[in-house]
Order: sequence, then structure tokens, then C-alpha cells
Amino acid sequence: MAVKECRRLDAALARQLLSQTEAVLFDCDGVLWRGEAALPGAAETLHRLEARSAKRLCYVTNNSSRTRQAYTEKLRRLGFPPADPGQVFGSAYCAARHLSRALPPGGAAYVLGGPALSAELEALGVAHLGVGPAPEPGSAHFGARAPLDPSVCAVLVGYDEHFGYGKLCLALRYLLRGDGDGRGCLLVGTNRDNRLPLEGGSAVPGTGCLVKAVETAAEREAFIVGKPSRFMFECVASEFKINPTRTIMVGDRLDTDILMGNTCGLTTLLTLTGVTTLDEVKGHLNSGCPERRNLVPDYYVDSIGDLLPALTD
Amino acid sequence: MAVKECRRLDAALARQLLSQTEAVLFDCDGVLWRGEAALPGAAETLHRLEARSAKRLCYVTNNSSRTRQAYTEKLRRLGFPPADPGQVFGSAYCAARHLSRALPPGGAAYVLGGPALSAELEALGVAHLGVGPAPEPGSAHFGARAPLDPSVCAVLVGYDEHFGYGKLCLALRYLLRGDGDGRGCLLVGTNRDNRLPLEGGSAVPGTGCLVKAVETAAEREAFIVGKPSRFMFECVASEFKINPTRTIMVGDRLDTDILMGNTCGLTTLLTLTGVTTLDEVKGHLNSGCPERRNLVPDYYVDSIGDLLPALTD
Repeated sequence: MAVKECRRLDAALARQLLSQTEAVLFDCDGVLWRGEAALPGAAETLHRLEARSAKRLCYVTNNSSRTRQAYTEKLRRLGFPPADPGQVFGSAYCAARHLSRALPPGGAAYVLGGPALSAELEALGVAHLGVGPAPEPGSAHFGARAPLDPSVCAVLVGYDEHFGYGKLCLALRYLLRGDGDGRGCLLVGTNRDNRLPLEGGSAVPGTGCLVKAVETAAEREAFIVGKPSRFMFECVASEFKINPTRTIMVGDRLDTDILMGNTCGLTTLLTLTGVTTLDEVKGHLNSGCPERRNLVPDYYVDSIGDLLPALTD
Repeated sequence: MAVKECRRLDAALARQLLSQTEAVLFDCDGVLWRGEAALPGAAETLHRLEARSAKRLCYVTNNSSRTRQAYTEKLRRLGFPPADPGQVFGSAYCAARHLSRALPPGGAAYVLGGPALSAELEALGVAHLGVGPAPEPGSAHFGARAPLDPSVCAVLVGYDEHFGYGKLCLALRYLLRGDGDGRGCLLVGTNRDNRLPLEGGSAVPGTGCLVKAVETAAEREAFIVGKPSRFMFECVASEFKINPTRTIMVGDRLDTDILMGNTCGLTTLLTLTGVTTLDEVKGHLNSGCPERRNLVPDYYVDSIGDLLPALTD
């Protein structure tokens, strides 16, 4: 891997880079929009990348609480180029894809997650026990007293507002049952994001907290489908003809977007409209630590709209 | 620290050791009893240690779901020598003790825990917001919408069957608020036990899973009061005149009981009636790794009742 230096991608450099580029993968929140507001110039940039510059666009997100379909609707709502659900690689879809191949015939998943995760599983025919509220303390089916479903041979952990001790308990009991009979019970997490930032500097816990709780109980590591896992890029690459050396990964997070891009041999572009500052990148650059160097992107822009000058005739 | 070899404590060796011993600290579950059944010979051993051999007995447990008072009742119910609540050092009591000193005047704790933790906090005058069920998804006070109490300057995590995403969210928001104003918000965990073993080989998640979830969200480490933290021994030592070199720590877990005993300069005795096998000890002994050597006890017995022959006249 060439040494990454996090150079500012000015118009001249961007023209040169784009002339060698076939596909651009975008993280969404913090790159294309924040909440319900598109970032300035973002929609126009993507229109030009696709229409004038003939780039293939894909959307790669760790958010497991929206379906592929919901992302296409949001892209349209915010004025981005119309996208097909097949261009969207969310961690809910990628988890469903993984389980559709990894579950043995007749096997089902115990799922910590919400309606979007459930919908993506069903779209790919992955059997599961359903999502939503679980029995509460004191009920006959709480925790250690809940009956176990014999078909379960995977535990899938995604974003789940109904996550609680009872679900944690069931997850552990399924995972321990697998330990005993030699078949094993898969443990899969959608992603490891610790926090979801809110406008105004506050934050709510991310799926990474729930994954960690289950991993701690089970004393084993989950297979993670989301960024920085290679698995997410492999999903994209297996559905489209993607040449990594002619692909750009655009993201606002070093430990997910940029790390995955660098690991998979893509060109990486950081936008400063999300959770990362240039000082953090400099810290990694100057650390002398090879692992931290993997978090350094090839290029950065203040905002994705900065590519516009390179996309004019 | 002398090299620990995990020697079998036979009657002759036990007589010699006990002649130099003033105090014995006992872990409870897996050492004195399992569930509601005293282990064979355990009660008689403790009677003799106290009455004939004039040892000071203390009970040191990571379980945060019972009060000191509840432990004295269980000891009596199972035929152990009558104990005063002052001899019982549970992680709920020790957490209350820590917060009673660490909280600023007027400060309160946001508590993930049950009624026992609440009772121990109140016994030491530690203000807190209460325990029990939290608002559910969809309610006006769920997660990011819950109002924050201005008096909170500590988050305490213990065993909590009502633990869930909403509580995790509140804990994070209190911890982030502290980050901003420079005063900081304390993060305290009762213990890090990953699992509570059930009879029959199954298990339920321990407090360690909840602590890890909060730590992952907050991106900081909790102060842990329970074993293997020195803090728990310091609680005992500050209330009784304890000479570490004349004190035995008896336990069934290497990474809590034995590690704390070794760290604090106590003589350590492993019982094989709980979660540990002799093979695990041998693995640590032969590892050549200094950290793993800290998990090796001085002595072991199959069961605490094996001390009886050394306690006859």
C-alpha cells in the first residue's frame, strides 16, 4: 500500500483522480447529509459524477435501522440522483446476505434489531424469531426462564431500541447452547459504531455497545459485516464489476470508512463535514504507528461539494 | 511477591498456615454454598475457624443484588456462624462507600441496579435517582428525549434486570454532559463478572456486560469497586485491623478472588467447588507469562470442608 498523506484534493488533483476513477462509494450521514438536510453542493456533485462523468455510485452505510429502499427514498427526497435499492449497501442488508449463506437449512436467527433489519432478512428469506419488545422482568418468559427455539443457530445484533437484559440473556443462552453440541451458534454484528452523534454535540449509544455487551457475555468475538470489515466491500464488489484501484471510498469516519477503503485497496477521501477533524488525521500521520497509519486517507476535502469545480467542463 | 505454586493444602500444611493466620476472607457463591445449598462441611469449618481458632471472618462478594443484611440472613439460614452486617463486603455496599466519599455535596448518582444497590446507597446517604423500569421506546421520555437531572454527577452500573437501551442512553448523556463542563461525571461499576453460572452448565449475563456497554458508549473506563480491584480489600482493611501477611483470601475464581488476594499481598486459597478447574491453574502456571502468574493461588483444596481435619484438637 502506498504511503497515504491526506492531501487536500484541489480541483487539478481531483480532475486527475476522477479521470482514473470508475466507481465512487459514499458513506451517507456526515458526507451527503446531516439529519434531514443535504450538505451544500452534495446533490449537484453526485448528479455530475453520474451524468457527466459516468461514474458508478454506491452507498455504503453502517446504519442498520433503514432498509435499502428507505435509503433510495431519502436520496430522492434530498435531491440526489435517483438510485436503485441495488446500489445501497446498508449493514442490515449485508447482514441478511451473510446469514442467507451462512445459516444451515432450516436454521433461524435470534435478532436484536428493529423493523428494517427484520425486513432485509425477510427479503432474502432468512428465518428469524422477530424483533420488538421482549418479556419484562417478573414475566414467566424473562431471562433464564425463556424457552429456547430449537431452530436458532445464529444471534444477530443490530441497532435495537428494545435491547435489554432479557434479550442479552437469551442471546447468551443461544450462544452457549451452540457451544455444547459442536454445531456452534453464529454471532454476527451489523457494526461496531460506539455512538450516533446528535446535532449539538450530544450523542446516543451505537450498535457497538450492544455488540460488546453480547460479546462480553458470550466471551467470543462477533463477525462484523459493517465497515471497517472487508465484508461490506466484498458485497459491493460481488454485485458490481468493481476495480479497487479505480474506486474511491468517501467517508467522514477514519475508523470505519477510511480504514475499510484502505484495507480493500481503494482510494480514500475524507470529508470534514462529519465527526472527524484534520488534527485527528495529523495525530495518526505523525504517530509512527503502522496501525494508525491505516486510518489516514489519501485525500481530504472540507465538503463533498468541493469536487464541483473539477466536474465542470 | 513469592512465587505461587498452587500446592494442595493438606492437613499438616493447613495447621501450619492457620497458626500464622488472623483473618480469613471468603467469597461466598461457589465457596460456601451453591444456590441455596451449603457445601458439605463448609458451615462446620467456619464455626471452628471462628470459635476454636479465633479467626476473624469476613465475606467479600461481587454480587450487587444483595444487601449486607441479606447476606447475614443467608449465612444464618444455611447454618454458618452468626455474622454482623459489618463483616459483609458486597459490591453494592462498597460502591455506596466509594460514592459517599467521591460525590460532591449535593451530587446524586444515576444508578443502573436493583433494590439492594438502592438500599445500600440510601444506608450511606448517597442521593440517587432510583432504580427499576425505565421509559420505553416510543414514550416521551425515552432515550435522547429524557430530561437530565442537574444534580447527577456519577453513573453507577450494577446488576440490573431492567437494563436497556433507554438507560444506556441516559448514562451516556450524563457522562457526556460531564465531559463538557470540566467537572466530569464519575463512572463507577460494581464488578466485571461476565457471567453468573447456573446449575446445569448454563449461565446468565453478569454485570460486566452492562459495564462494558456503558464504557463502550462513553469511550472511557469505569472505576470498579469489586474484585479484583484493590478497593474491596481496602474497604475491609479500613474497617478492621487486617494484616495482609496474616490474612487468607478464599475463592473459586482466579480472575477475581485470587487475583485480588495476590495483588493485595494476601495468602490465596482456591476451592474447586465453583467455576475453576485445576487444569486452568496449570495453564497459568506453565504459561511463562507474568500476568497469568498473578492468577495462581498459593494453595488449593477440593472443598472448603477439607480444612476440617486441621481444625480438630
